[in-house]
Amino acid sequence: MQPYELSLTDASRAVERRELSPVELAESVLGRIAAVDARLCAYVTVTADAALRSARQAGSEIAAGRWRGPLHGVPMALKDMIDAAGVPTTASSRVREGHVAKQDSAVAARLAEAGAVLLGKTHTHEFAYGLITPQTHNAWDPGRVAGGSSGGSAVAVAAGAATFALGTDTGGSIRVPAAFNGMVGLKPTYGLVPRHGVTSLSWSLDHVGPITRTVRDAALVLAAVAGHDPRDPASLATPLPDLRLEDSAADLKGVRVGVPGTYYFEHVSAEVETAVRAAVERLGALGAELVDVDIPMARHVQAVEWGLMVPEATAYHEETLGSTPELYTPEVRVVLEAGALVPAVDYLRAQRARTLIREAWAELFRRVDVIAAPTVAVTAVPADRQTVQWPDGTVEPVADGCLRLSAPANVTGVPAVSVPAGYGEGGMPIGMQLLGRPLDEATLLRVARAHELADGQEGRLAPVAA
Amino acid sequence: MQPYELSLTDASRAVERRELSPVELAESVLGRIAAVDARLCAYVTVTADAALRSARQAGSEIAAGRWRGPLHGVPMALKDMIDAAGVPTTASSRVREGHVAKQDSAVAARLAEAGAVLLGKTHTHEFAYGLITPQTHNAWDPGRVAGGSSGGSAVAVAAGAATFALGTDTGGSIRVPAAFNGMVGLKPTYGLVPRHGVTSLSWSLDHVGPITRTVRDAALVLAAVAGHDPRDPASLATPLPDLRLEDSAADLKGVRVGVPGTYYFEHVSAEVETAVRAAVERLGALGAELVDVDIPMARHVQAVEWGLMVPEATAYHEETLGSTPELYTPEVRVVLEAGALVPAVDYLRAQRARTLIREAWAELFRRVDVIAAPTVAVTAVPADRQTVQWPDGTVEPVADGCLRLSAPANVTGVPAVSVPAGYGEGGMPIGMQLLGRPLDEATLLRVARAHELADGQEGRLAPVAA
Repeated sequence: MQPYELSLTDASRAVERRELSPVELAESVLGRIAAVDARLCAYVTVTADAALRSARQAGSEIAAGRWRGPLHGVPMALKDMIDAAGVPTTASSRVREGHVAKQDSAVAARLAEAGAVLLGKTHTHEFAYGLITPQTHNAWDPGRVAGGSSGGSAVAVAAGAATFALGTDTGGSIRVPAAFNGMVGLKPTYGLVPRHGVTSLSWSLDHVGPITRTVRDAALVLAAVAGHDPRDPASLATPLPDLRLEDSAADLKGVRVGVPGTYYFEHVSAEVETAVRAAVERLGALGAELVDVDIPMARHVQAVEWGLMVPEATAYHEETLGSTPELYTPEVRVVLEAGALVPAVDYLRAQRARTLIREAWAELFRRVDVIAAPTVAVTAVPADRQTVQWPDGTVEPVADGCLRLSAPANVTGVPAVSVPAGYGEGGMPIGMQLLGRPLDEATLLRVARAHELADGQEGRLAPVAA
Repeated sequence: MQPYELSLTDASRAVERRELSPVELAESVLGRIAAVDARLCAYVTVTADAALRSARQAGSEIAAGRWRGPLHGVPMALKDMIDAAGVPTTASSRVREGHVAKQDSAVAARLAEAGAVLLGKTHTHEFAYGLITPQTHNAWDPGRVAGGSSGGSAVAVAAGAATFALGTDTGGSIRVPAAFNGMVGLKPTYGLVPRHGVTSLSWSLDHVGPITRTVRDAALVLAAVAGHDPRDPASLATPLPDLRLEDSAADLKGVRVGVPGTYYFEHVSAEVETAVRAAVERLGALGAELVDVDIPMARHVQAVEWGLMVPEATAYHEETLGSTPELYTPEVRVVLEAGALVPAVDYLRAQRARTLIREAWAELFRRVDVIAAPTVAVTAVPADRQTVQWPDGTVEPVADGCLRLSAPANVTGVPAVSVPAGYGEGGMPIGMQLLGRPLDEATLLRVARAHELADGQEGRLAPVAA
């Protein structure tokens, strides 16, 4: 096994025990980037020299007995919406040409403080405004979409080209590419991870979170980046959840897992439904109580998601949209321009509906601890496919098929994680989504971890030939 | 002295000592309503029978040794935006004809629990959307405006027709009529007093608070109505401020009082400026450190206030505005209809500016504990006056002259209290506004109380002949 193949948890343990030096690890992962990224296009920018310098520094510190913790000397990538001092933040857009971040974002600073080694910046759907990431190829099949908007991050982690990565998630942008690339993608509770220095798509829906190979990896990254920062007005000042996970399979006795009878299993492909239902049954076999639930106000979720996101995105881009509209891709420009036409009362209707949806979900989470559902209705579609057709004849744009099941967690702010749950046609990964109570990431990740162990595919990488 | 003339603090003490029965007190105040309200028009609805029943019950409880606390047996009025079970909430609008509240608002329930006696509901500018309250006459001069939108509440308290009252304040609607009628008007920290069951004008700016005769009275009422209620999404779950005030004049050593060099003393009438500056000097003489401050981002405040309020108000009224537009007064209808034309991006620009203004004020409150300023630029204007002309030739609509100095506390959410500070031409009351740090009502009221004692006019009622 090459160092680049190690999960964060395993790499970190080897580094701590000095069985593996941060430089060896960084060189292995940088070598992997060199070998595969020309085909995958996960990265916008690779900061190889700086990464090796950081790795050497981490190596010296650890050799001197100053191990900082589980991220020390571990190489990682940031979605190119997230500022790192001295590195361009392109948001995968020509609008950002020449833009170099002056200072670290809150999360980049925390990762640096934890001793993580920045490899570079990964591709996003332009300004995170889409669920495909067209520049980037799926790690399991280059003819299929990477998913988005954090497509580069998910592909890099899946291909061994980063030990972990951060993404952002406004309507599914961490969970969708994680599911499409067989990785773990965690969108934490709204406000838990500060967004200072992260390019905004829609501030009332934006989240930052990890894409990793295993659930324990996700817990390690979340613990490093979570916590109050007053520079993000939505940042929560509450105490952090305890994120330590058992090493071995904990049984799930006493955990109530909600299984939606509505919404989450409607218009879902047969292979996704079968895989997720089998995973849910395994949770039951581990002792979880399976509880039938209805998803409240489900038919309003997409309208609320769009009703908030579209005007907030336009407000953020107002200036550059006026001065250099031609620098946007036509696809993103048209939705940004449409946003200027939304009346405030429609936005406010969406805000009010969100409040009601949140209250209804809070009620739901009195009856269950976690909800289990598919992450996306399908596996990664071929890159040239625009729509999904359902057996009842309904035709759905691919973006809606991606957003539909992930948006509820953005609208409500509840934490949600996508975990690999088997493989469909062509060996494409399927994701199960677990949703939890706000700030109860501990229970959410405990269930995710139990699933991962029962599933038996922990940390499996995409079969990308070098 | 008649019972109706007593401050809440004094009436309460007399009731507790059984020197005055709740029934005597209620009868005295109801008698005062009967004597003066035909001319003042402070009340929409007087619930005399129910008030006497409550007073009798309070009397029995107290006689049996079950005194509930300082509001027990004290008669009070609610602005007619605030629901009380079984009583109409008209919002002083034809739109609400036939509307009877099914249950108590959060604040009405808390006052009932504290044993306060509801006298009735007081006039508001229609749906609180204005600063005049045209139905109601100023308690000091019936030819002048009451101020608004809580005009009925302020006039009732000033005229002895309620021992205290609640109002709501979205852009000055507690403080402006309090200043115009020589009363104490407190707009608490945003989120401190829950708004469940209170008709909304603009939910991100709406506050509920007391109008009283003295600062100690305000503290007693606030202590009864403050505190978390999950039915108001903006209600704060933080611990309550300690609101016990010293009986005697505390000196103000160690308190830093900010005196604005900009904004609050611009376009202010000479008599208001003179009175407020004299009051500020007295605070200095009491030991406060006077600190020159600049008000940050002041020129954006009014645009932000309107930019948030106009679309939020329209969103709230959307349904009735569509079905029965003719029932609104033309003046309110036109602003509600205009609100439908505001683009979401303009609303969002106002939201973002508010965030920046709040941050700048938080910075300001690191240097001072309280800010002292005029409440309104003028004393109550004649009822037929539409504009105010300033010496430099500027002409300002009366509503802007009212809103201008009070809106910053709504936009920032900081607590602000208007206290009487002398009298101008025609004996009309002048208000000084004190603004404090969020949730530091204790310091705010301590300074207000010190001013009140130094001013020597504590609890002075309007000279309304019976």
